[in-house]
Amino acid sequence: MLVIGENISVISQKVSQAIKDRDKKVLQEMAKQQSDAGADYIDVNIGPATKNGPDIMKWIVTSIQEVVDKPLALDTKNVDAIKAGLEVHEGKAMINSTLGERSQLEVLMPLAREYNACIVGLAMTEKGVPRDTAERCEVAMNIIAAAQEFDIPMDDLYLDPLTLPVAVAQPQVFEALEGIKLFKQLAEPSPRTIVGLSNLSQSSPPHLKSILNSTFLIMLLMNGLDAAIINPLDKSLTDTLKTFDILQNNVLYAHSYLD
Amino acid sequence: MLVIGENISVISQKVSQAIKDRDKKVLQEMAKQQSDAGADYIDVNIGPATKNGPDIMKWIVTSIQEVVDKPLALDTKNVDAIKAGLEVHEGKAMINSTLGERSQLEVLMPLAREYNACIVGLAMTEKGVPRDTAERCEVAMNIIAAAQEFDIPMDDLYLDPLTLPVAVAQPQVFEALEGIKLFKQLAEPSPRTIVGLSNLSQSSPPHLKSILNSTFLIMLLMNGLDAAIINPLDKSLTDTLKTFDILQNNVLYAHSYLD
Repeated sequence: MLVIGENISVISQKVSQAIKDRDKKVLQEMAKQQSDAGADYIDVNIGPATKNGPDIMKWIVTSIQEVVDKPLALDTKNVDAIKAGLEVHEGKAMINSTLGERSQLEVLMPLAREYNACIVGLAMTEKGVPRDTAERCEVAMNIIAAAQEFDIPMDDLYLDPLTLPVAVAQPQVFEALEGIKLFKQLAEPSPRTIVGLSNLSQSSPPHLKSILNSTFLIMLLMNGLDAAIINPLDKSLTDTLKTFDILQNNVLYAHSYLD
Repeated sequence: MLVIGENISVISQKVSQAIKDRDKKVLQEMAKQQSDAGADYIDVNIGPATKNGPDIMKWIVTSIQEVVDKPLALDTKNVDAIKAGLEVHEGKAMINSTLGERSQLEVLMPLAREYNACIVGLAMTEKGVPRDTAERCEVAMNIIAAAQEFDIPMDDLYLDPLTLPVAVAQPQVFEALEGIKLFKQLAEPSPRTIVGLSNLSQSSPPHLKSILNSTFLIMLLMNGLDAAIINPLDKSLTDTLKTFDILQNNVLYAHSYLD
């Protein structure tokens, strides 16, 4: 499973201050930590970035790739900032994300094509969150059609069923889980699937987060999940991933497999 | 999922001593603890019980059912002991277990029928452990055919794919996991499925047992597992089960769901 490290996000006070001060050491250190912990991609969430979005994204991408040999997931609603990031990015970037809206798809899919990037398609529209698995699949089909129209290989498309907090929208959790299974069947070859896992346990008390996230991750993997945006420094999650790989016989067992 | 409490077993020094001394208080206390912790069945494993098997089983069954209003899984290779247990058992007992051998099937299936008991069918023969999922299914088909011949409803048949220790037979773990999924498709209506979970982590160091057992339990549940023989006092396992039920939307979420 592809691990996308989520820690560099403007939601974090430390990150937003580092961006304001253009203090690249802070972000470089966070990227290195996540990379060392096994992240395959480093997500950089700069928020709406309505002011200086392109400059900020360029600065972050080059700062991180100075010290870490990993691709980045460019995470903002500002299309110009994504474009600026893609221009300076080395390797195969990820665009995170497009809604299933024509206005976004016809801008972001050509960008993914031009820069040979992966793209995350979120199974929602501007109308809001789908009510069930069927509505998720309807939006996902529109995203797949746009990917085909703009010549994006299915291997580069990551569909996200939108995981909501179990504490506030419990039935939606199961709908998202089912979405993962069904998305894989919507095209041949299959598109890939992704979730933002930590949404699940938002609003749950701290002592529940670990068991909720770990249990749901295994359930998703059993349904064919290909990638997850997680905190790679969360040892209970990475231990769970390693254990799954052992039990699936993907990795050779040793008593030391968690060390 | 049906929980069968595994703690009353002659493998335990405390249990074997209590049987020798006919000290029923020890076994009653262990049965009550497991029942309070949510066990649906209490397994009583008296081993080969070549000496006084029927007397021992009768004594254990009546002693436990004096204090616990739960059915028991009668766990011994001694057929006379199983018969003696069934005679005094109240409610729907479970026979644990028969191999896929004609000589056992034609004795134990009629007993299950006569006493309206459930029966566990282990997907192995006297030749030993099957090498892969296909061989497990072959043995399982023989067990299903015998159940149909002796008029056992599929709801009363629990097929066990035989879980081996990941530390010594890693590839077999995945074969057993696949077995659970395929067993459900071997008859219509489906037979039920069961595993002895703690086998998985035998020979693994103590710090790995909990994460191995919990992770595998979720993987099995996602493949359609109906019952597991576990230690119901293992809180990490029962917390995992509760979390699975929350995420499947079977049980209403509350911040206190693990308390």
